[in-house]
Amino acid sequence: MEQLLRVHNFCVSSDGVAAGPDQSMDSPFGLDQSKLMFWVMGTASWVGRSEVGGTRGLDDYFTREFSRNIGAEIMGRNKFGPQRGPWTDHEWRGWWGEDTPFHTPVYVMTHHERPSFEAGDTTFHFVDGEPADILAQAKRAADGRDVRLGGGVTTIREFLDADLVDTMHVAVSPVRFGSGLRLWDSPDELRDRFDLDVVPSPSGVVHHLFWRK
Amino acid sequence: MEQLLRVHNFCVSSDGVAAGPDQSMDSPFGLDQSKLMFWVMGTASWVGRSEVGGTRGLDDYFTREFSRNIGAEIMGRNKFGPQRGPWTDHEWRGWWGEDTPFHTPVYVMTHHERPSFEAGDTTFHFVDGEPADILAQAKRAADGRDVRLGGGVTTIREFLDADLVDTMHVAVSPVRFGSGLRLWDSPDELRDRFDLDVVPSPSGVVHHLFWRK
Repeated sequence: MEQLLRVHNFCVSSDGVAAGPDQSMDSPFGLDQSKLMFWVMGTASWVGRSEVGGTRGLDDYFTREFSRNIGAEIMGRNKFGPQRGPWTDHEWRGWWGEDTPFHTPVYVMTHHERPSFEAGDTTFHFVDGEPADILAQAKRAADGRDVRLGGGVTTIREFLDADLVDTMHVAVSPVRFGSGLRLWDSPDELRDRFDLDVVPSPSGVVHHLFWRK
Repeated sequence: MEQLLRVHNFCVSSDGVAAGPDQSMDSPFGLDQSKLMFWVMGTASWVGRSEVGGTRGLDDYFTREFSRNIGAEIMGRNKFGPQRGPWTDHEWRGWWGEDTPFHTPVYVMTHHERPSFEAGDTTFHFVDGEPADILAQAKRAADGRDVRLGGGVTTIREFLDADLVDTMHVAVSPVRFGSGLRLWDSPDELRDRFDLDVVPSPSGVVHHLFWRK
């Protein structure tokens, strides 16, 4: 069985912005993330759901696809947390505390060394190198299952530029931010290398499903 | 975790027909099933796929959802095969031979006794009773996972009438058969009890996603 590198539930604005320039402890995305993530929060499968209920329609299919047949995640250090430069604060163990949504090995890309650690059933490794090398490492750890590319936007661009992404789900929300870190100017930029289904959801988000030609 | 009864990838024509009146060894659906199933056959996850490739867009999400977190299936005897009345031919072990797509216990509804048997990693049980009792039996066997209601159309109607279905995915194909066994005159008949997302796919099929209110 082919092992895929998959992007899931990556949220951008209608002008392609996925993160603001000013990520901080109080603002993990550096912008009002509820304007991008609202469609996830209504679904039955949302990991943050504290009450029973939620929708089980189209958006829920995408929400729950996050963990299907995933054996490892790769993320950029800006997804892991707001620190930059050398890791001076080892008390900071990611946004998720001990109860992460990953449940697999996670490879955090960084130029600065840091020892691996475990948080619940997730092990965080800190790795430096080319995307292809880090992907090879994650695939070995995934033990036959697929690898999820978790973001942020800079990391996804890096793997797209290296032509390593097999499938990508991007949810485009009906909001414009104007400035910030962009995934694209238009999804059409990727049509030369990917097939694309564009699927409007009743929630107002437009799901974009890419798969390699 | 709540155990759901789920219908997946149930295919009907634009006039609601899911099966013809004349099921036979040569025609499992009693009609030209390629006109209903074409959208499945193009996908990467189709169990019948013999070559690599296939689409990984919207239709593929539905195709692969078939087995996610399923611990048992319930089907009517008309899905199992074309025999009617007492089971005189025990050589007939279902359309699938030893290589079934189920990989779980399967409960075949019938008024006629027949011993259970194993085909690969699937065990077929032949059970008589009310839908609620058969569902209770399947849920016990599913060991915490969900139960899939496999069809055919008569069986799905029976479980809908007993208000036992939690989620239902019906793919409506752009073909009219005029006569045959109908799931509905219109999907709107179910809106009093279910929320519904109607999602057109680029392939031409229209996915209908119901979940209980």
